[in-house]
Amino acid sequence: MKKLYVVGLGPGDEQNMTGRALAALEESEVIVGYTAYVDLIRARYPEKAFLATAMRGEVERCRMALEAACGGRTVAVVSSGDAGVYGMAGLVYELAQGYDPIDIEVVPGVTAACSGAALLGAPLIHDFAVISLSDLLTPWELIERRLDAAGRADFCICLYNPASRRRADYLRRACDILLRSRAPETVAGLVRNAGRAGESARVLTLGELREAQADMFTTVFIGNSQTKKLSGGMVTPRGYRDA
Amino acid sequence: MKKLYVVGLGPGDEQNMTGRALAALEESEVIVGYTAYVDLIRARYPEKAFLATAMRGEVERCRMALEAACGGRTVAVVSSGDAGVYGMAGLVYELAQGYDPIDIEVVPGVTAACSGAALLGAPLIHDFAVISLSDLLTPWELIERRLDAAGRADFCICLYNPASRRRADYLRRACDILLRSRAPETVAGLVRNAGRAGESARVLTLGELREAQADMFTTVFIGNSQTKKLSGGMVTPRGYRDA
Repeated sequence: MKKLYVVGLGPGDEQNMTGRALAALEESEVIVGYTAYVDLIRARYPEKAFLATAMRGEVERCRMALEAACGGRTVAVVSSGDAGVYGMAGLVYELAQGYDPIDIEVVPGVTAACSGAALLGAPLIHDFAVISLSDLLTPWELIERRLDAAGRADFCICLYNPASRRRADYLRRACDILLRSRAPETVAGLVRNAGRAGESARVLTLGELREAQADMFTTVFIGNSQTKKLSGGMVTPRGYRDA
Repeated sequence: MKKLYVVGLGPGDEQNMTGRALAALEESEVIVGYTAYVDLIRARYPEKAFLATAMRGEVERCRMALEAACGGRTVAVVSSGDAGVYGMAGLVYELAQGYDPIDIEVVPGVTAACSGAALLGAPLIHDFAVISLSDLLTPWELIERRLDAAGRADFCICLYNPASRRRADYLRRACDILLRSRAPETVAGLVRNAGRAGESARVLTLGELREAQADMFTTVFIGNSQTKKLSGGMVTPRGYRDA
């Protein structure tokens, strides 16, 4: 059967990829992805065909990949992080319904929640919620409801897409919702460019996070009521009882 | 400064490890972990020292690692999956407070939410909550509150530690809580032994999940209201609007 890999590249450089992800790229004749990610790996594979589209070109990108696979070539669609977390895996499955049967294999990667957490210390050791602040495909009212629910149930929280030029104040709005149920002293963290040039991690409080700047390369962490600042890191205990 | 790596091995075999994780093991003189994980990698490094403790020996394991690092040896503490998700990273930071200053570096890995999701298709494409059903260190009332909150806010949900011999009916209890706000037809998934011998993935409904068997090698997925069964897989759309 025709073969299509959906590959999570992890954060940043090749050292963050798994052996399985490297093997899938090696086996593929065509690599399809967002321009910036394709450019990261193009030099490594001079003999392969690359197909890239700009941001928001996800549907077109999937169709190009599915057509190449139906034409008999082994194809890899690449996502940064993990392709199954706000990545391309779902769209590939959905759009594949309109094509010949294709063997789709999702190769998991290290998602930004995990790579960012590692830079901060250990913020997501206990139950956590992952929420995107992008309202492009999701009504803001639902995002707000999820933030409020996660805040009240004392989840650790990881925010993807915390801001963009169009959504400059969304992180502040999210913090205001969390401040309904969480103290301003709650430990929080900001990670930029995990695994890439300009990588940075900063531990602050939820009150300070409300005033902080974020962009599309930022991942945001908010601790639960037990999360501590330890040796400059952000650390959540394994539970609510001593072991 | 003394160096201690906390390394996520990802699921199962070496192909699922990142290059950074392999490099950290390579550099370490002492590797510390739960017996079963240490046995997975022992053969590869005949020249290294291995220190292992049985299940629930986490505190002792961390102390052995910290003492070895304070003795001047480069040490890696290994966890399966990602060391920052119900893993050893937090405990290492907490216990390190009692020792000489140590440079702790967490090397992220592919956590079971991501490796399990990849086997099912794409269940966690949209906002999701990760909840452990183990009440060893967390009161059951809080776990129940989180399940209820995540259910009502239409999060996709991933359950770690869904059952053990002592907690044989916890998955059923969790399903009953989710069924307060979710239809029994909600798409769900069960993954066993991701990346290891006996790997299996099964798509079912929340109603069927209530009757299903799980053990400590199982990861459980419950879709949101939009999650579909597609070509045998479990797929959550990118949002609630068409792009």
